[in-house]
Amino acid sequence: MTPTPLTGAVMAPLYGDMQATALLSEEAVAAHMVAFEIALARATEAAGLTETGSADAIAAALDGFDADLAVLGQGTASAGVPVPALVAQLRAACGEAGQALHWGATSQDVVDTSTVMAVRDVLELYADRVSALIGALEQQSEAFGDVVMGGRTRSQVATPITFGMRIATWAAPLIALEAELPALKDRIARVQFGGAAGNNLAVAPHGADIAETLASELGLGATVQWHGDRSAVMAVGAWVGRVTAALAKMAGDLILMGRSEAAEGKAGKGGGSSTMPQKSNPVASEAIVTLNAYVTALTPMLAIAASPAEERDGGRWAMEWFALPQILIAGAAALRHGADLAATLQAFPENMARMLDANGGAIMSEAASFALAAHMPRAEAQTLVKDALKLVNGQGKTLTEALSEIGPDGIDWMQILDPRQAIAPSQAQAKAIFANRTNSLEETK
Amino acid sequence: MTPTPLTGAVMAPLYGDMQATALLSEEAVAAHMVAFEIALARATEAAGLTETGSADAIAAALDGFDADLAVLGQGTASAGVPVPALVAQLRAACGEAGQALHWGATSQDVVDTSTVMAVRDVLELYADRVSALIGALEQQSEAFGDVVMGGRTRSQVATPITFGMRIATWAAPLIALEAELPALKDRIARVQFGGAAGNNLAVAPHGADIAETLASELGLGATVQWHGDRSAVMAVGAWVGRVTAALAKMAGDLILMGRSEAAEGKAGKGGGSSTMPQKSNPVASEAIVTLNAYVTALTPMLAIAASPAEERDGGRWAMEWFALPQILIAGAAALRHGADLAATLQAFPENMARMLDANGGAIMSEAASFALAAHMPRAEAQTLVKDALKLVNGQGKTLTEALSEIGPDGIDWMQILDPRQAIAPSQAQAKAIFANRTNSLEETK
Amino acid sequence: MTPTPLTGAVMAPLYGDMQATALLSEEAVAAHMVAFEIALARATEAAGLTETGSADAIAAALDGFDADLAVLGQGTASAGVPVPALVAQLRAACGEAGQALHWGATSQDVVDTSTVMAVRDVLELYADRVSALIGALEQQSEAFGDVVMGGRTRSQVATPITFGMRIATWAAPLIALEAELPALKDRIARVQFGGAAGNNLAVAPHGADIAETLASELGLGATVQWHGDRSAVMAVGAWVGRVTAALAKMAGDLILMGRSEAAEGKAGKGGGSSTMPQKSNPVASEAIVTLNAYVTALTPMLAIAASPAEERDGGRWAMEWFALPQILIAGAAALRHGADLAATLQAFPENMARMLDANGGAIMSEAASFALAAHMPRAEAQTLVKDALKLVNGQGKTLTEALSEIGPDGIDWMQILDPRQAIAPSQAQAKAIFANRTNSLEETK
Amino acid sequence: MTPTPLTGAVMAPLYGDMQATALLSEEAVAAHMVAFEIALARATEAAGLTETGSADAIAAALDGFDADLAVLGQGTASAGVPVPALVAQLRAACGEAGQALHWGATSQDVVDTSTVMAVRDVLELYADRVSALIGALEQQSEAFGDVVMGGRTRSQVATPITFGMRIATWAAPLIALEAELPALKDRIARVQFGGAAGNNLAVAPHGADIAETLASELGLGATVQWHGDRSAVMAVGAWVGRVTAALAKMAGDLILMGRSEAAEGKAGKGGGSSTMPQKSNPVASEAIVTLNAYVTALTPMLAIAASPAEERDGGRWAMEWFALPQILIAGAAALRHGADLAATLQAFPENMARMLDANGGAIMSEAASFALAAHMPRAEAQTLVKDALKLVNGQGKTLTEALSEIGPDGIDWMQILDPRQAIAPSQAQAKAIFANRTNSLEETK
Repeated sequence: MTPTPLTGAVMAPLYGDMQATALLSEEAVAAHMVAFEIALARATEAAGLTETGSADAIAAALDGFDADLAVLGQGTASAGVPVPALVAQLRAACGEAGQALHWGATSQDVVDTSTVMAVRDVLELYADRVSALIGALEQQSEAFGDVVMGGRTRSQVATPITFGMRIATWAAPLIALEAELPALKDRIARVQFGGAAGNNLAVAPHGADIAETLASELGLGATVQWHGDRSAVMAVGAWVGRVTAALAKMAGDLILMGRSEAAEGKAGKGGGSSTMPQKSNPVASEAIVTLNAYVTALTPMLAIAASPAEERDGGRWAMEWFALPQILIAGAAALRHGADLAATLQAFPENMARMLDANGGAIMSEAASFALAAHMPRAEAQTLVKDALKLVNGQGKTLTEALSEIGPDGIDWMQILDPRQAIAPSQAQAKAIFANRTNSLEETK
Repeated sequence: MTPTPLTGAVMAPLYGDMQATALLSEEAVAAHMVAFEIALARATEAAGLTETGSADAIAAALDGFDADLAVLGQGTASAGVPVPALVAQLRAACGEAGQALHWGATSQDVVDTSTVMAVRDVLELYADRVSALIGALEQQSEAFGDVVMGGRTRSQVATPITFGMRIATWAAPLIALEAELPALKDRIARVQFGGAAGNNLAVAPHGADIAETLASELGLGATVQWHGDRSAVMAVGAWVGRVTAALAKMAGDLILMGRSEAAEGKAGKGGGSSTMPQKSNPVASEAIVTLNAYVTALTPMLAIAASPAEERDGGRWAMEWFALPQILIAGAAALRHGADLAATLQAFPENMARMLDANGGAIMSEAASFALAAHMPRAEAQTLVKDALKLVNGQGKTLTEALSEIGPDGIDWMQILDPRQAIAPSQAQAKAIFANRTNSLEETK
Repeated sequence: MTPTPLTGAVMAPLYGDMQATALLSEEAVAAHMVAFEIALARATEAAGLTETGSADAIAAALDGFDADLAVLGQGTASAGVPVPALVAQLRAACGEAGQALHWGATSQDVVDTSTVMAVRDVLELYADRVSALIGALEQQSEAFGDVVMGGRTRSQVATPITFGMRIATWAAPLIALEAELPALKDRIARVQFGGAAGNNLAVAPHGADIAETLASELGLGATVQWHGDRSAVMAVGAWVGRVTAALAKMAGDLILMGRSEAAEGKAGKGGGSSTMPQKSNPVASEAIVTLNAYVTALTPMLAIAASPAEERDGGRWAMEWFALPQILIAGAAALRHGADLAATLQAFPENMARMLDANGGAIMSEAASFALAAHMPRAEAQTLVKDALKLVNGQGKTLTEALSEIGPDGIDWMQILDPRQAIAPSQAQAKAIFANRTNSLEETK
Repeated sequence: MTPTPLTGAVMAPLYGDMQATALLSEEAVAAHMVAFEIALARATEAAGLTETGSADAIAAALDGFDADLAVLGQGTASAGVPVPALVAQLRAACGEAGQALHWGATSQDVVDTSTVMAVRDVLELYADRVSALIGALEQQSEAFGDVVMGGRTRSQVATPITFGMRIATWAAPLIALEAELPALKDRIARVQFGGAAGNNLAVAPHGADIAETLASELGLGATVQWHGDRSAVMAVGAWVGRVTAALAKMAGDLILMGRSEAAEGKAGKGGGSSTMPQKSNPVASEAIVTLNAYVTALTPMLAIAASPAEERDGGRWAMEWFALPQILIAGAAALRHGADLAATLQAFPENMARMLDANGGAIMSEAASFALAAHMPRAEAQTLVKDALKLVNGQGKTLTEALSEIGPDGIDWMQILDPRQAIAPSQAQAKAIFANRTNSLEETK
């Protein structure tokens, strides 16, 4: 229990992510703000609005500038944003040239642009992590490609699959998400520059030119101001939410596989228990589940923020500050745990076999009825399988024995009811899933 | 108050949408299910798994078939899904050929495929409505292109804009969303066919072939089964959420413009009040706000559904049924109201002028200080404007009068402080916004 | 897939609740509206505002009145509420006396009051169902009071409990919720009567008197108007959310107990599978999980509705119509399934025993180390247990055998390591939980 | 933009709350954990389970103990909870006596108990702040008791109220919430002590006795363990959510009153704008709106946490850590801003009058038709008022003039149409609202 599981001392080592947190830190964003102001000085000078030489003077004066965050905080308390306080600090540092600072910009221009610079950096971190995770899952999917286990549907053992196929299904949503990422990054990483009410009135008719210069100086895209159009911010949140939902699917499956009564698989360094030495808690998987719930909870704030009032909205805009960086850090932490899990996957085939053999191998009932349907009407085939299952349950026979006894002659039940029949179609599935990645990566090139 | 504002008699005329509701109705989805089963019969026959001629016999027998929905409901109550009950009805209707029905399919294959057929149809409805809405907004943006009004930031009059520019900003997120729609439709409109545990074991090695045939018969894309990958469903919800958030921004602005004390604009047929004849309630705009909140509320259910357990999950899967059609209907209703609003936009320039003239025209203070900054250091310029505003407030002068009095000579304050200065840059903004549409429509062609 | 899983033909038999739906139906609420108008006629006549005799005439004319819901729907479409259309229908039915109808009331007075009449009725249904469910759980807790099973913490078998104790913990939150219900019902079941802007200006100074009469006529409490105070509505939603969360805890536990590899327990009539005869799906438990997620999703709408603008708010008020009846129906459906589950609980002690015996009975490791700690320092005791577990894992001994071999003499390991040691403290827990009910029921009497 | 608007340097001065943050800090909670362990040592010694004198030795050794939070963090990373790492630190500090530490407790016992100690402290802070806020609102309600303004319904001026009455309606939900707080505090502030799987098996039959001692040592209530019953935690979240919703209603109204075109009221020190000196942003009100949205967003996490799996659940339990302290800090911050706003309320009656006089005083149309209804059938009365309004709009007359002209003789329109008619009934409303507080405070005594 702590005010900030993402960043506090006691909880952040589990729930936080040092890299993402650094990219979104107050220091990092303040540095982007300074970079914005320097770039703006260049742009307004280029447009002939501010004095020749002022941009160089500003850039020189602000080289290595460190904002006093506590003073910015006081500024936020009174103005709702730290920008006026920051501009005052910058002006103090720049002397005369400081007159040329912040020309035609509104606070939201500065905050939004510096924010998307940080978001862009985090999305690059995501690109690396998602790519590495898919790669690791593909390797593991192959490594466990012939490990047969009972597929579960609605919490019940249904028909056999392979562990490799299940691993591939974990990767499937991530593959789609990876393909969407470049467009998403382009969509969000755009300069914000609209001035007070969005039409750049104070610098007209140079608004678009200045935005272009800002964009090229800051490595962003140029676009019309988006003070009132938060659709891209909402899209980032939705994308991260889909990432963490995919990770939580993997984590949830691992928790179920690792339950004491199943013990079919395991991943991560399970947390031990001081009083119960036989336990091994799925700490990393649980953390992913928690982080995903957090991301899901915060996402609606971005939806509310996406209906701001009029030209600029104070209350709804600030909702993004409570949700976007938190979502990005939580997603990065979940990806970090996901990588750990993927790297340490273990299967316990002897325990998997227990479910394949249970009830005389009843898991192959479906296969039996499909095989019989080649010899008799389907309804009869199903009745025959049910009769065989009665022998299994009543007399302790295997399904193979029972069907050999009461089924038609000439069927090789040993082969048909071998759960290893699932290997080939499962491998085909897994291959098809990863083939999608190759296709989509090529398309987006 | 009613259990179902989207579909009941009393509330649906406001909150529902007849077209979307019809496309997602139990009848429509049941018809898609029948189509799925017919297509599957063709595919399994083509794969040599079912008897030659059975598909034609099935298709003939099911021509015009009407499922008994009440019986399906009883099936749902016991099995959690209506499919076994439906298949029983179909078998009864098909006689001998019915043996070939539902070969190798699991209930989720049927439900998911028929659902995405309905979703595809609704997304086509969306494509039409979003396109028409953007078109209408573009027309109105031009029509009101020179209507100057006070831009508002943080609920305060800031600097002047045009009503046409504000209308364009309403369209901005919709333009991005329109461009994303074709890819989204392709992403969701894919056949689901995996069999019991997803690897098509019962029809191996024909799984992929059957899926291809199903896809071409049903006008869907083919893909690996997605029993456990609900990322596309979540993406549809997120996209609709961004649409309704954009509409709610427009609706919220219209409610604010229509407030009695502003009366700057109006749209829709405002609901009257029996006891207060002077009132005109913004019923359609309020309905959009409500519908958007509903969509936002339901979206997290799709996130939870996107982490299903293992091969197929009963509880989380069903969450989609509580959220996806509701989101789609609510979004369609919001678009319908949005179209009504866009078509009936009115501006009351005389009331807009009140805000432009308030406080002696203080809305042009920013323009004044930028103009002065060409003649003196910026800090001095701002001080001078503040002094002028003191004269305005203290002596009832206009800002033009005050600055003519205390400012440097030779500045044409009449022109500089004319709010119509905002027309050109506002029109430039609006043009740039709609130009984005042309660009992105071309790209997606 | 259907627009309305709570009320449609195909899904409602599983997800809906006929009783709650009837109480909240458009017909039921319309009837409450008519009752409100009759009571108001009596109250205004009593206050001398309307003609003597008009109330009787109105009551007579409206005896058995059936509102035309389709016409109300048209009214909603234009006015945002069905009340003006209803009042017009009533006036038409009452002739001359109809002049006295709706005197001094605003639409929200009618809608809110009739809504809370329906909510009151549903809460009485809840009182019955919650009470019956707790009673059933208490019975089952006693019936399974000596059935020992492995307690699970963080998905791992930890130390033994009894099934009876687990059942009691399911009841624990319901017992607290039952005790809160009477106050909640009083809080919500209050008449709404404020007139246009809430101060009963049109009937001043009779506002409070009329509200009193309305309350006594309609069996509600009287209070100051609450047009802008939706805290009680939010409280109802939160209470139902806590009910369904408690039910979902029970359902989730049952799903885990019923997993194929555990098979420790079962409840409800599991849905079968046409192709996989060995399966038994936990349909009712899954439905509870889904319904709880739905309630959780809708609850935030009530929070947004609880910050309405000014005297009366159209958009936020309507959010309650999308959330409150749906929450109430979903909760009622969940309680219905909960009752079915509680009535049909089964335990499979032989499968429970598998976990108690696993790893040589390692589940009793904690008991072993506490027993040893009476004979040696605790750290030594824990080390000794770990050594014993090595023998268990390495040589296939039971923990009893291993500790008898390497532990100090004179300890009765057979007794100490008997999981049945858990029976007494588990029964004590269960008793204490149900004793809380007796206490709190007495307090609220 | 910062990872933690509640606690970072740049944003916390606006969005955080120093007092609540201190009460919920890692340091404060760690101190409660140490207190728990000392109290537990006393309790187990009293139960005869640990050595006589060990508790005193532990208490002495831990006097002034400062946990090394970074080391706890490493413990969290591996174990999912900081408790094992903390116990190791404590043991190291206690030497021999440390053997008696943590006897029979599980990590969740420690975390939950220390958390509710912190929550109890924060709820006491809330009690003070809510009480003070209601008191301030009552004072202001009286002070503005005869300030007449246009009541707004559905964003339109409807009929007159007083500002004092509106202020009273802001207090109404808070009065109910204040009355609920003592029971809520009792409900949550209970010791958690169940041991590994909740039945105190390791210390049987002393579980209940130890819990009693813990409770009395720590100033908490005693109860059965609630590892799996999180209903009280959810109740705290719901209560705070209702508090912030009430505050957001006040804040929203103030933002609307302070809009440039209304300028009817103001509160707080509005943030200025560097480039637009005429602006005064409603920073505190906007912050409340944002904080309320944050609380609403996080509340569903507590709902998910309230359905934990089995005896103890790692993933769902941790969701409380992401929501509960954050909700409590955000609520405290909102209350702090609420107090500032209540203390600085201003009204601008001259601007209010503009709406009362608008359209010839049409705001009194309802009053006119009710007055006329004493002289003619109601329908006729309404028609006459509509005719009068036509004269108002067409010929620029006031409603008084128009009705004097076309209405029946002998009606004192000057008096009847005086908006000050609203004062008495509005004051009656306000009095009734605050009388509820007196009543409920007495009841809970």
